[in-house]
Amino acid sequence: MSTGELELDRIKRLLPQWVEASRRLTAEGKVASYIPELSKSPREALGIFIMSASGDSVSGGDCGFGFTLQSISKVFTLILALMDHGEAHVFAKVGMEPTGDNFNSMLKLELVEPGIPFNPLINAGAIAVSSMIGGDSPHEKSARILRFFRELANSDTLDYDIDVYRSESETGHHNRSLAYYLKGNGVIADDVEDVLDVYFRHCSVKATCSDLARMALVLACGGADPLTGKRLIPRRYVQIAKTFMVTCGMYNASGEFAINVGLPAKSGVSGGILTMVPGRYGIGVIGPALNPKGNSVAGVHLLETLSAKLDWSMF
Amino acid sequence: MSTGELELDRIKRLLPQWVEASRRLTAEGKVASYIPELSKSPREALGIFIMSASGDSVSGGDCGFGFTLQSISKVFTLILALMDHGEAHVFAKVGMEPTGDNFNSMLKLELVEPGIPFNPLINAGAIAVSSMIGGDSPHEKSARILRFFRELANSDTLDYDIDVYRSESETGHHNRSLAYYLKGNGVIADDVEDVLDVYFRHCSVKATCSDLARMALVLACGGADPLTGKRLIPRRYVQIAKTFMVTCGMYNASGEFAINVGLPAKSGVSGGILTMVPGRYGIGVIGPALNPKGNSVAGVHLLETLSAKLDWSMF
Amino acid sequence: MSTGELELDRIKRLLPQWVEASRRLTAEGKVASYIPELSKSPREALGIFIMSASGDSVSGGDCGFGFTLQSISKVFTLILALMDHGEAHVFAKVGMEPTGDNFNSMLKLELVEPGIPFNPLINAGAIAVSSMIGGDSPHEKSARILRFFRELANSDTLDYDIDVYRSESETGHHNRSLAYYLKGNGVIADDVEDVLDVYFRHCSVKATCSDLARMALVLACGGADPLTGKRLIPRRYVQIAKTFMVTCGMYNASGEFAINVGLPAKSGVSGGILTMVPGRYGIGVIGPALNPKGNSVAGVHLLETLSAKLDWSMF
Amino acid sequence: MSTGELELDRIKRLLPQWVEASRRLTAEGKVASYIPELSKSPREALGIFIMSASGDSVSGGDCGFGFTLQSISKVFTLILALMDHGEAHVFAKVGMEPTGDNFNSMLKLELVEPGIPFNPLINAGAIAVSSMIGGDSPHEKSARILRFFRELANSDTLDYDIDVYRSESETGHHNRSLAYYLKGNGVIADDVEDVLDVYFRHCSVKATCSDLARMALVLACGGADPLTGKRLIPRRYVQIAKTFMVTCGMYNASGEFAINVGLPAKSGVSGGILTMVPGRYGIGVIGPALNPKGNSVAGVHLLETLSAKLDWSMF
Repeated sequence: MSTGELELDRIKRLLPQWVEASRRLTAEGKVASYIPELSKSPREALGIFIMSASGDSVSGGDCGFGFTLQSISKVFTLILALMDHGEAHVFAKVGMEPTGDNFNSMLKLELVEPGIPFNPLINAGAIAVSSMIGGDSPHEKSARILRFFRELANSDTLDYDIDVYRSESETGHHNRSLAYYLKGNGVIADDVEDVLDVYFRHCSVKATCSDLARMALVLACGGADPLTGKRLIPRRYVQIAKTFMVTCGMYNASGEFAINVGLPAKSGVSGGILTMVPGRYGIGVIGPALNPKGNSVAGVHLLETLSAKLDWSMF
Repeated sequence: MSTGELELDRIKRLLPQWVEASRRLTAEGKVASYIPELSKSPREALGIFIMSASGDSVSGGDCGFGFTLQSISKVFTLILALMDHGEAHVFAKVGMEPTGDNFNSMLKLELVEPGIPFNPLINAGAIAVSSMIGGDSPHEKSARILRFFRELANSDTLDYDIDVYRSESETGHHNRSLAYYLKGNGVIADDVEDVLDVYFRHCSVKATCSDLARMALVLACGGADPLTGKRLIPRRYVQIAKTFMVTCGMYNASGEFAINVGLPAKSGVSGGILTMVPGRYGIGVIGPALNPKGNSVAGVHLLETLSAKLDWSMF
Repeated sequence: MSTGELELDRIKRLLPQWVEASRRLTAEGKVASYIPELSKSPREALGIFIMSASGDSVSGGDCGFGFTLQSISKVFTLILALMDHGEAHVFAKVGMEPTGDNFNSMLKLELVEPGIPFNPLINAGAIAVSSMIGGDSPHEKSARILRFFRELANSDTLDYDIDVYRSESETGHHNRSLAYYLKGNGVIADDVEDVLDVYFRHCSVKATCSDLARMALVLACGGADPLTGKRLIPRRYVQIAKTFMVTCGMYNASGEFAINVGLPAKSGVSGGILTMVPGRYGIGVIGPALNPKGNSVAGVHLLETLSAKLDWSMF
Repeated sequence: MSTGELELDRIKRLLPQWVEASRRLTAEGKVASYIPELSKSPREALGIFIMSASGDSVSGGDCGFGFTLQSISKVFTLILALMDHGEAHVFAKVGMEPTGDNFNSMLKLELVEPGIPFNPLINAGAIAVSSMIGGDSPHEKSARILRFFRELANSDTLDYDIDVYRSESETGHHNRSLAYYLKGNGVIADDVEDVLDVYFRHCSVKATCSDLARMALVLACGGADPLTGKRLIPRRYVQIAKTFMVTCGMYNASGEFAINVGLPAKSGVSGGILTMVPGRYGIGVIGPALNPKGNSVAGVHLLETLSAKLDWSMF
C-alpha cells in the first residue's frame, strides 16, 4: 500500500466517528432562510465526499442529497471569465483583496476608490464576473457556464434548481442594489437584469458532495482531470482560483479557516463547502446549518478535524 | 412705510451690488454634469426672487429662466406624504437625523439599525417618501404631486421637464441601487421602478425663482397662502418641513448654512435654493455653479450676505 | 397679567402632572455607568427649573440635587474659545456639521478629509475646543472656564465634582484615543494630557437645574443676563451656540428633538438638559435615566410635552 | 548538482539583471517620511539576500545597509506571544481576519463587535500582541524580544536603532490613539505607555537583508534553524505565522501579493520584506521606495519576477 492508500484507508476507518462528532454542532447553526427553498434543507445533515487523484473515494454522513452551489459557483465563473478574457481584463473590473466585511456589503464600493469590488468571491465581485462571461445573450452565457460546470464535475446531468433560481431572482433585492451600484460606477456595462439572470442561474446549479469533490479534484490537480487526463483549465487560472479560495473563500471567516484548516476552500449559503488537498484530494462537504459568518458550522468543524489529524494545512 | 416695507426698499436698492459680488464666486463652482440636460445650465448665472407676505416682491440677477426642482421637490413630497398618511406612518419608514454623509450615501443604511433612511431629504429618504404618496398607480401619484406643487406655486403651468426626467431615469443607477437596498430592507413595498418613476418625475418639475419664492412663502406663512388666504398645508407639517430644512436641507453643508445663514432652506443640484424668512418672505434662488457639497456656490454666498446685512438668522 | 405671566401661571398649575407623566418613562432608561460616580445618580429622578427673563421661575419635580454638566459644558467652552480667538481660528480646527454618528465616534475623523472633528459638541470637537481656551497652563485655562461658568450661572459656588473629574480622567481611554488621533491629525498642538485635563475638568462642573436655567437664560436673551443687565457673551457667539444646539445638541437624536421640541438644547450623560425658549425662558432639566441615544428619557418627554402644549417650537 | 543547487545557480546568474529591471520602479515610489529617520533612506536602493536550507546564499543589489524591521517584527512578536501564552489566550484578544483597511485604521474597532483587532499584523493587533509578551516590565519584555530576534537571526549584534525608536515614540500619536482605544475596549490591561514602549522598540530593531533571510529561513524550515539544528519555534506557531503572512502580511495589498507571488511575506515601512520559499529558502529584501499601499515598490516587483520565473507560488 502507498502512503496515499494508507491515509485513505485510515480516513475510511475514522471518518464515521469524526462526522458524528462534528454533526453535534449542527444544533448551534441556522439553515439559511432568506429564500423559502433553502430553508427546507435538513438542519442536522452533514456529509462529506473525498476523491483521490487516483480515483479512489471515501464518503461519510449524508452524501446523497443535492444542494445548490450558491457562492461555490463563483470560483468557477471566475475561472471561465479568466479563460474568456485573461487576467488584465478581469482584474480591471474586480480587485484581489479580502475585505473583512460581509459578503453582500456595499461599504468599500462607496468608501474605497475606484469603487470596484474588492475581490471576485464577494457578491459584488461575482456579479461583476458574471458580466464578463463570454456569450451574446444571458441565455448563451448561462449555457456556457453550465457546460463548463458539467465538464468539471464530469456529469451530464448537473442542472439548475429552477425553484431556487426563481426564488433568488424574485427576492434578490440586495444583489440588485449591488449590481446597480456597479453599473453606476461603470464596472458593469451590460443590462443589470441580464447580468443578474446569469448570476442567479449559476448560483442555483444543483450538485451533490461527489460532484463538488470531482470539481475540486480538477483544481487540486492543477486544472487537468486526473481521471480522464483532460486539461480543463490553464494552470495559472487554477493558481489564481486557489489563492482567492485561501484569502477570501470562506466569507469573512477566511482568515480563521486558513489558520485552522489551511486549505483552499469555498463555501455557499446552502451549507456546501468545496475544498481540496492540493495534488491529492478533491473534497465536497454539505451541512446546511450555518454559523453566524455563513459557513456550514459542522462542515468547518469536520475539516478542522481532518486537517489537524492528517496534517493537511498547506502552511 | 412699515418696517417691512422699509426693509424691502433697502433690499431693492442694495440687491444689484450684492448679486454682482456673489456672482464672482460662480467661477469657483461646477455645473452638475451627471446628466447632459443639467450640464447645459449657464454657469455664471445667479438670480433671486423675494416675495413678501403682502405680495410685494424684489428680484435680482438672472431670474427669468426655468430649472428643475431636483432635491427641492423633496420638501413638498414629504409634506404630501405626511398629509396622506400622518407622522406615525411616515416616520416608521424614514428617520429624523442628519447624516453627515453625502446625499446619495448608502453607508448608514448598512451600518445603522434598522436600516431605514436617516431623513427624508437625502436620496434614500426621498425615495422612501415617494413610495408613500397616495395613489393607485405611479401615474396617479405623479399627477397628485404635480397638482400639489401647482397649488403651492399658484401656477397652472408648472410642469415636468421631460428631457431631464428621461435622462435621470436612464442614468439613475445609484438611485436604483438605493431603492433596491430599501426594498431589501423592507422599507419599500411597491415595485422599485414604479417608485423611481414617481421620484424621477417630481425631481424634474421645472420652475423659476418666482415659483420657488411663492412655494416658500406658503411655508413661511405656516401653510396658508397669504395672498389667496387658502390653507394648503396643516401647520404641524410645515413645522416639520422647516425643521428638516434647517437640520438637513443643504446636504452635508446644512450645519454651516445654519450657522452662516440661519434660515430653513433646501437646495437642488440644478443650483436652485428655496428658502424663507419665517413669517415674512418666501425666497427662490438660482445659481447653477455648485460648490463641492452640491449647493449653489454663489447662491449660498448671496444668502449669507442677505442674512448678515439684514439680521435674518432664526437663531 | 401679561401673556408671559399668564403662561408661567399655567405652567405652574400643570407642571406637576406633566412631570409625573414623564417620570414614568424613567423605568425604560438606564443611568450612565461608565464611571462609578455617575451610576450613583437616582434613576427615577426628574426635575425641571424654568426661569423667565423677568426673573420669575417655576420648578417641578426633583430640582434640588446637583449633577455634573458633562457635555452641557461644551456649549460654553465653545463660546469661550470663540471669545478668545474668533470664528476663523476656531472653525479652522472644528467643523459645523452634524455627524449622525455616536458622540465618541472616530469614523469621520478617519474617513472624511481633512480629519477635523465635524462639530464642537461631539467629544472629538469638544476636546479640540478645550485646546483652544486661552491661558498659559491647564490650570489657568480651567480657572478661566470655571470663572466664566460662574458668571453665567450667577453663582460664586459653582465648582468641580472632584470625584467625577478623577474618575473620568482615570477611565477616559476612548477620549484619550480621540485626543491622540486629533494630535496625529494636527488638530491639537498642545500636550494631550494637558488638553484632556481641561476637558475632564469642565465636564465635571457640578450644577443644579436652577444653575442650568440661569445659564440658558443668558443665551435665550442674546448673551446679556436680563437680571443683572450685564453683557456676558457677544450676540453672534450666542447665535452660533444656539444653532449648534439645534443641529447637534442632543447627540444623534438632535434631529428628532428639533422636530418634536424645536428648541436649542444640550444634553449630558449625567441626565441634564439645558434648553431655552428664545427671548423668554432659560430651562434646566435633570433626569439621570438615559435613552439609548444618551439623553434623559423622561427629560426629553417632558420637554416634548411642554413644547406641544405651549407651542414653543422655533419652527 | 541537485535541483536545488541548479536553481540557486540559475538565480546567481540572472539575479543582477532582475534586480536592475526592478530597480527602475523605485522612481515611482516614495520613501516613508512620517519620521525624519526613515526619510533618510536611499530611495533608489534595492537589495535581496536568499539563503538556502543548506546554508548556501545568493545576494543581489544593495544588501549591505541596515534598516529597521518596523512591521516585519510583528510576525515574531506574535510567535513569542504564542510561545508565552498559547493560542487560546492570544486569539481572545486579537482576531484572524484580513481587514481590507489601512494598517493603522480604527474603523473595524468601532464598527465590528467585539472591538478587538482583526489580526495581529495590523498596528492595532500588533500593539495588542506587544501587551502579551511575557515579562515583569517593559524593559524585561523588550529584552526578551531582542534575545528572541537575535536567536532567529543567529546574530549577537542585532540591536535597536535608538534614533528611530525615539522618533517613533515621540511622533506616534495615531498608534497612541489605537492603544488607548484598545485599552477602552478592554483589549489591553497594562499601562498604555508601557505597551507602546515595547511596541516602538521592537519596530526599531535594525537588521540587514541577510538577517531577514536567516530569520525567514527558520520559518521556511518549520521553526528549526537548519544550519544549527536548533528548534526555535514550535511548528504549529510557524504554521500560524506563515498563514497570517499570506492573508495579511503585505498590508491591504496582501491579496494581490498572494496572487502574483504566492509566498508568505511581511513588509515594513522601512522598505523591508521578509519572505520565504517554504522548505527551501529564507529571503530578505530591502527597497525603501514604497508604493501607495506601503510596500517596497521595487521589492514587490522583484519577488513577482522571481516567483514567476522560478514557479515559486505555493498555490
